[in-house]
Amino acid sequence: MSQSFSIVIVGSVALDTLESPWGAASDCLGGSASYASLAATFYAPVRMVGIVGSDFPAASTQLFREKGVDTEGLEVAEGKTFRWGGRYHANMNRRDTLFTELNVFEHFHPKLPESYRDTEIVFLANIHPSLQLEVLDQVSAPRYVALDTMNLWIETARDALGEVLKRVDLIFVNDEEAAQLTGHSNLCRAVDALREMGPRHVVIKKGEHGAVLFSSDGPFALPAVLLDKVFDPTGAGDTFAGAFLGHVAREGCLDGPTLRRAMIYATVTASYATERFGADRLVEANLEDIENRISILREMTQWPTGTTV
Amino acid sequence: MSQSFSIVIVGSVALDTLESPWGAASDCLGGSASYASLAATFYAPVRMVGIVGSDFPAASTQLFREKGVDTEGLEVAEGKTFRWGGRYHANMNRRDTLFTELNVFEHFHPKLPESYRDTEIVFLANIHPSLQLEVLDQVSAPRYVALDTMNLWIETARDALGEVLKRVDLIFVNDEEAAQLTGHSNLCRAVDALREMGPRHVVIKKGEHGAVLFSSDGPFALPAVLLDKVFDPTGAGDTFAGAFLGHVAREGCLDGPTLRRAMIYATVTASYATERFGADRLVEANLEDIENRISILREMTQWPTGTTV
Repeated sequence: MSQSFSIVIVGSVALDTLESPWGAASDCLGGSASYASLAATFYAPVRMVGIVGSDFPAASTQLFREKGVDTEGLEVAEGKTFRWGGRYHANMNRRDTLFTELNVFEHFHPKLPESYRDTEIVFLANIHPSLQLEVLDQVSAPRYVALDTMNLWIETARDALGEVLKRVDLIFVNDEEAAQLTGHSNLCRAVDALREMGPRHVVIKKGEHGAVLFSSDGPFALPAVLLDKVFDPTGAGDTFAGAFLGHVAREGCLDGPTLRRAMIYATVTASYATERFGADRLVEANLEDIENRISILREMTQWPTGTTV
Repeated sequence: MSQSFSIVIVGSVALDTLESPWGAASDCLGGSASYASLAATFYAPVRMVGIVGSDFPAASTQLFREKGVDTEGLEVAEGKTFRWGGRYHANMNRRDTLFTELNVFEHFHPKLPESYRDTEIVFLANIHPSLQLEVLDQVSAPRYVALDTMNLWIETARDALGEVLKRVDLIFVNDEEAAQLTGHSNLCRAVDALREMGPRHVVIKKGEHGAVLFSSDGPFALPAVLLDKVFDPTGAGDTFAGAFLGHVAREGCLDGPTLRRAMIYATVTASYATERFGADRLVEANLEDIENRISILREMTQWPTGTTV
């Protein structure tokens, strides 16, 4: 096996208030960088960049550290931590934002500690594309840059997003965002258009329908793990991306088989993000749990022998 | 290999008028029995039951016969053939019904020729559930009964549908219909509830997201073939089901691997139904085309070696 890559993850760190038909929870650990970093630590140590307020629970910082997150890049500012509130409906595909309090996040500018600047994999988790650009200007020679985004930035910061995309190797988007960003509702055409914008690799996230990776190795489609209760999908996409890149960091390789394996780890790791509010279930899972679900996923996608016309 | 099973397919035979952003076509061969039967003939000869008017093109009857459809059960009645008109929007997931002219279909009661009554596989393609029940009363001892349905019958004929379901081994439904029929938006729960209604096997069709088979062999998920243009999705679900059952008929077996292989043939055969208006592309495809797309699908779902934690 090659030597592993170092990885830095930049995004939001938040306290989420969540409601779903199955209950409610306040001030759960949330934010794109939190989910992505915790997910990545199953596979590799992570350098995190983000900002929290002075009210951020010491236990959460402690959790990051215990799991292998380097928090040197987690700035603690005077004031309150970014808070987001959302409510899910029974089918889990629709959510309403109840409130967004940017707090210390409002004037955040990511600052990479000196020790992070040589990082080989950079994950620009979901934050404003102009902040994503600031991060890229602080890394010396990344080998692989991945980006996640959301409909809000596609609508309000398309130019900045276009600038970042030129410097990105991999984009994670859901199928709606891909259509919104490219104007193509056909997936193949949307992916072609995305690749023309910069990224050579594209992962289309489809939630309960799974995900598809497009790389030079050809498309690779995986279903989601079947769960009989999806409790809270918040952070599932961030978890998917974090696990994907954590696995790539662990293998220290960017070839087709590595990326396919990353899809598998990402799919299984993300399934743990949805089973309880916040990251509780995710941080409880261990590698044996993940291995068990990989077996289930393998069985679910296994072709029988003798499939010829 | 076991001896193959005989198969009868009962459903609508129609002339469709279709509009999409890519063009329009009038009086295309359509209907659930037409698509399902033509799809099944790639794998096994088919006995068809349906009704057409005296205006039904001789060329279409001829096509059925050339492809291996026994049309003894295709009643020709005085009057006009059932006609349906639909319009698709750019994203292909929404369609508007422009008109429905039942014509000779209005007073249709399926009559199975004597030679069909010992048929081993019965496919009740999408028609009113009370007609599906009439069919079951005319077969002597079917080994495997499969059913397709639609939102209209779930809304307007739920009791009759419940009666048929008790006598069915396999149901094909899309995810919305599964939720509508069971009240469960979670797929696993919907499938459990469907199985309590009768069918031991369930296939959830997800259109562009693929399909999932639930049987005693565990779930099996397959993505759809990626197409860079979906021209006309009419009949794709009927094609999927017909190919699935045609393959089962060919293998003459109902075990887990057979059903998984049936999913693969169904997925690939259905991809040909969407590439042109009506069944034109489907009837043009040959087994070599199908084999080529199976290779593509296999490559798209192939796990890399060495996936361990």
